[in-house]
Amino acid sequence: MNRITTLFLIAIVSIFLWQCSNSKETVVSSPNGRVTIQFKLDEAGQPSYAVAFDKKPVIKPSKMGFELLSQPAMAKGFEVSKAESSTFSETWEMQWGEQRLVENNYNQLVVTLVEKEAPKRSLIVHFKAYDDGIGFRYEFPKQDGVDSLFITEERTEFNLTGDHTAYWQPGDWDIYEHLYNKSKVSEIDALKKRNHPNLGQTYIPENAVNTPVTMKTDDGIYLSFHEANLTDYADMTLKVNTSDFSLVSNLVGSERTKYKVKRALPFNTPWRTIQISKTAGGLIDSKLIVNLNEPNKLGDISSWFQPMKYMGIWWEMHLGLSTWDYQGSQSMDTFAEGGKNGTATHGANTKNAKHYIDFAAANGIKGLLVEGWNTGWNHWIGFDEREGVFDFVTPYPDYDIAEVVRYGKEKGVEIIMHHETSSAPRTYEQQLDTAYNLMKKLGIHAVKTGYVGKILPKGEYHHGQWMVNHYRKVVEHAAKNKVAVNAHEPIKDTGIRRTYPNEISREGLRGQEFNAWASDGGNPPEHLSLVAFTRMLAGPIDFTPGVFELTLKPKPNNKVNTTLAHQLALYVVIYSPIQMACDLPQNYEGHPAFQFIRDVGVNWEQSITLDGEPGDFVIIAREERNTGNWFVGGITDENERDITINFDFLPEGKVFKAQFYEDGKQAHFEKNPGDYTIEIASIKKGDVKTFHLAAGGGVAISLMQ
Amino acid sequence: MNRITTLFLIAIVSIFLWQCSNSKETVVSSPNGRVTIQFKLDEAGQPSYAVAFDKKPVIKPSKMGFELLSQPAMAKGFEVSKAESSTFSETWEMQWGEQRLVENNYNQLVVTLVEKEAPKRSLIVHFKAYDDGIGFRYEFPKQDGVDSLFITEERTEFNLTGDHTAYWQPGDWDIYEHLYNKSKVSEIDALKKRNHPNLGQTYIPENAVNTPVTMKTDDGIYLSFHEANLTDYADMTLKVNTSDFSLVSNLVGSERTKYKVKRALPFNTPWRTIQISKTAGGLIDSKLIVNLNEPNKLGDISSWFQPMKYMGIWWEMHLGLSTWDYQGSQSMDTFAEGGKNGTATHGANTKNAKHYIDFAAANGIKGLLVEGWNTGWNHWIGFDEREGVFDFVTPYPDYDIAEVVRYGKEKGVEIIMHHETSSAPRTYEQQLDTAYNLMKKLGIHAVKTGYVGKILPKGEYHHGQWMVNHYRKVVEHAAKNKVAVNAHEPIKDTGIRRTYPNEISREGLRGQEFNAWASDGGNPPEHLSLVAFTRMLAGPIDFTPGVFELTLKPKPNNKVNTTLAHQLALYVVIYSPIQMACDLPQNYEGHPAFQFIRDVGVNWEQSITLDGEPGDFVIIAREERNTGNWFVGGITDENERDITINFDFLPEGKVFKAQFYEDGKQAHFEKNPGDYTIEIASIKKGDVKTFHLAAGGGVAISLMQ
Repeated sequence: MNRITTLFLIAIVSIFLWQCSNSKETVVSSPNGRVTIQFKLDEAGQPSYAVAFDKKPVIKPSKMGFELLSQPAMAKGFEVSKAESSTFSETWEMQWGEQRLVENNYNQLVVTLVEKEAPKRSLIVHFKAYDDGIGFRYEFPKQDGVDSLFITEERTEFNLTGDHTAYWQPGDWDIYEHLYNKSKVSEIDALKKRNHPNLGQTYIPENAVNTPVTMKTDDGIYLSFHEANLTDYADMTLKVNTSDFSLVSNLVGSERTKYKVKRALPFNTPWRTIQISKTAGGLIDSKLIVNLNEPNKLGDISSWFQPMKYMGIWWEMHLGLSTWDYQGSQSMDTFAEGGKNGTATHGANTKNAKHYIDFAAANGIKGLLVEGWNTGWNHWIGFDEREGVFDFVTPYPDYDIAEVVRYGKEKGVEIIMHHETSSAPRTYEQQLDTAYNLMKKLGIHAVKTGYVGKILPKGEYHHGQWMVNHYRKVVEHAAKNKVAVNAHEPIKDTGIRRTYPNEISREGLRGQEFNAWASDGGNPPEHLSLVAFTRMLAGPIDFTPGVFELTLKPKPNNKVNTTLAHQLALYVVIYSPIQMACDLPQNYEGHPAFQFIRDVGVNWEQSITLDGEPGDFVIIAREERNTGNWFVGGITDENERDITINFDFLPEGKVFKAQFYEDGKQAHFEKNPGDYTIEIASIKKGDVKTFHLAAGGGVAISLMQ
Repeated sequence: MNRITTLFLIAIVSIFLWQCSNSKETVVSSPNGRVTIQFKLDEAGQPSYAVAFDKKPVIKPSKMGFELLSQPAMAKGFEVSKAESSTFSETWEMQWGEQRLVENNYNQLVVTLVEKEAPKRSLIVHFKAYDDGIGFRYEFPKQDGVDSLFITEERTEFNLTGDHTAYWQPGDWDIYEHLYNKSKVSEIDALKKRNHPNLGQTYIPENAVNTPVTMKTDDGIYLSFHEANLTDYADMTLKVNTSDFSLVSNLVGSERTKYKVKRALPFNTPWRTIQISKTAGGLIDSKLIVNLNEPNKLGDISSWFQPMKYMGIWWEMHLGLSTWDYQGSQSMDTFAEGGKNGTATHGANTKNAKHYIDFAAANGIKGLLVEGWNTGWNHWIGFDEREGVFDFVTPYPDYDIAEVVRYGKEKGVEIIMHHETSSAPRTYEQQLDTAYNLMKKLGIHAVKTGYVGKILPKGEYHHGQWMVNHYRKVVEHAAKNKVAVNAHEPIKDTGIRRTYPNEISREGLRGQEFNAWASDGGNPPEHLSLVAFTRMLAGPIDFTPGVFELTLKPKPNNKVNTTLAHQLALYVVIYSPIQMACDLPQNYEGHPAFQFIRDVGVNWEQSITLDGEPGDFVIIAREERNTGNWFVGGITDENERDITINFDFLPEGKVFKAQFYEDGKQAHFEKNPGDYTIEIASIKKGDVKTFHLAAGGGVAISLMQ
């Protein structure tokens, strides 16, 4: 079904060569001509680029360069030795994804720079102009006298054309689990976001933002800045100059080295990307990030990984109803007066797992994550000595892993392995063979990894080059063992799922679990309306939607700040090839609305963002692969609103059985989150219908044949 | 849970004795004094009774008497030798039922009559005056010179006070599967209902009606005539005099005997009953019929029978998608032009049964009926030689009954046995031991029996004494083998479930299956609004509700004349301790409304008819036993209407999670039967809400805690 047939429909590469070392300015435009990149070398031989959209600048001339350890910077004194332009067009197939076929059409400009004077180092800049944005990267070619480069900083500028409205989160080197903020660029103050009480780790050294960072210009153009194919390099944050509205790359470093990136030559940096769209939804529909990654290296993985819905012995721990550790010391039942009430018992036991399997099997849910199954959880967090705590193979005495896996297989429910590394990646790497051998023995093909806490060795950050390489090593090791990886506390997504389709999803945002215990009131209603236009541009999100018991009993001080219909809509709004139905079986039982979770697809033929505005609302329609069924999800922020959906996206001549899961008349994320209605109708292409979304509300629609 | 604890809360029996052989008139009133029975002996010594409600006559003086074979009638020349009056009050517990506790409070009058002249035969009349109606029966005491009585006719009159509106069906001796009619008593014309093309058997000898027959007086009083505890006697039809609005008993006879009932003395006739109410709903809430039956003879049967929802390999045969017989000769796939298209295959095969079991298990449905599992179906109907066709133990080669039962047990789904007798009861009686031994061996505790076709031996009718005794013999044999019986083409219910709680449900009405093939357009939308006030007064109904695919694909000329919400409401409106979810699994899959079928109770703590009018609409609320959950069902006829529900019946101080399954805006039984909406709300005692019911529509409400 998800075959790896990469369809090179058209792959014409036309190469034009200029022997034009004197040319000061080179331009490349996107296939439709609307996006233009202008490369320039100034009088001092300093390279810069600028970007225009519809002939208006969107990025003013912005300098490029590198600072190096014990070497002069590579920033000026260059001349152009060669400029190559080419056209590329292909359609490739995603094994799983928001859409099956991806158009990858761009015009490319490759500029080779050489220092005019000794040491005459060479730097090549690759620009790709797409209709939906641009990407550029630096190539450090093999050259005499330089074996390895020790980069202390990359100086890539993004000079904005004005004080845009920005949707941003602080440039934390350790975590992406901050709320998104909306402010003018001039008002970005990342340092104010330091010391959030609910983060397992956090380090914000500069007034920088993490990517993707999305902006809206006064002209109504939407821009999003990110990177693609982050491989053997440090995560790029963007330092903000609030007076001249310029951003400059600020790589994540390490306290253990004086450099931020060490690479042997030749090598390429990740692509620096700017998605550009006249509509906010155009950013979501853009496939720029995956297009800027390498084709699939793994071949067809569909025999061992298929997109699926899954459940987890997980939410019950966050609610404090059970514990990860067998000893019960790590309980989150802090809702009782005076602290923990100690009533929670170990969640990952055989009986409980079978209970979840039964429920999942009965409802067509194909996977079950079991957290807290292995020894070590009583020592996993808050300790400096975390190396060797987890061995990833020894189950607690009440958990018969072989029996649970067998029972699951019998019922058609796959057990998803869980590896919490407690941010001791060296231990994890040492255990990889053992851990994945167990999975192979059991026939397990998916793992959720976790990296809660400060990284060991001390001085490393989650987003530095050392950890980027660790995360990739795990993905590659997993691929060799036919295991799909869903990393939590991950390095951010930069589209490597194209190359490694076993990198199925990841966290890397403030997920659902914050609602269960965050002391700041949980995720606000606008959260996912911001996430959709920021984090989601990077790639699949394991947000774990689907809370039905929104008052979060027995927690007295926490709740989910959305309506139930909003939770349903997230199955369409959020893209992930694995979507958790996160609530407890007993909280789903009896709910007619659970039918939507049963029905909704997880793998898509195509996706269309119908409308939206960051932080306000978003409506997405997706067609399920193979079935031709369509699903629509729409969510709003704290404001109620009417949205009108034109079903023009449906194919001609077919009548769909529609089910509308809407907010009830009394629905309100604070006052009555559980109020919903379900309506049945016949819908065909061209029908138009208006839906009322409550405050914090949503609408979920299934259109089946 | 369903324990047999009969609670004799109060059982005071006060006896007053009159030595008053000369008294011409005796009166007994119900506990609240509103219902009064007046017994009188006229100048000719002919007994009669009259009934008043709120001091107004509802039954004018009506004679009583018997015609006998080769003996003078017992009808006049009597004198009263004794009249005893007593008061009785008890509360007894139904093991399963519309309510748990039943008040059984009445005042009784027992009048002993003796002929003044030889042969001085004695007849005792027992009258019971209840607040919700009356019952009386005849006792033939042991007496000299008479061993057995050969009754050729019972002459019990019910002389109406006017030309009431009657809800009636013809007094067919062979079947109760006629539609109910609404007409003035003066317009009752049962003979016009002869020769209905879709009945397996039918015989209407007189202008009589079957009971229960319900009426509404011009004063707005509702009456229903029936009988209770029909044991070793013939079914009583009521012959209609359309000019003076009198009814008189007309027993079902036999062509094989010159009498209609033969009984050895002493014996009691069944109770002749009249339910009386100021509201139509009061008839439904009346427990007169069960109160007039004997207490439980079987003890606690809850270890082997519990009320349940069940599915069936059954509807697919009616749709012509599969056949009962292995040979395929009995296909109902008559939808193809030119007759049967021959594509249907044998339904009762192991694989199909497991498919149904999987679906049932996944949805909390506890039973599966499998029809057509045993050899003989190619010869079961339309043949005179039907004796010995079925042996009730030999499965068709594609049906591994032991494996299906084992698989079902493993998944918590009980297989319900099916015995189609093809109306050859002698064969069935000969096979009873063998048949029930197989069930015992397999651990099967429920059977659906069937009696389609003319009875063998020829000359017997389904409703004659011979068959009444056969049906009872089966119930008693089943009880000994711990088997619950659901008879189709049964003798009508007269409340024997109180005595034999293994008599769980029965057909005895025009069921859902007529929608699949009846040439008269299927059941009209008003059908169940009539049934609720007529047939349902007799007892539990196996109507098999729950069609979701209401257009009945692939049948071109048949459909169900209700909306989907109406089908849901039937789970509450119709009372039965076994309720089928009759549609195919694939027709339920994907329907949020199926949640109602998952949730709805089948055993009730109490039931309240909130409102209704025969043939127009009815709304019933029922509280589930043990859970305290409430369910409400409301249905309407072909007219759309608004109904207002006052949730005053809910307990104080509790907030219920309500789910309203309503007709959609476009819903209409003809134009758009499948349009529905589901709304969620919180509901507490005292809340009032108005619902719009579409033409042929309904509303189903769950109120869970």
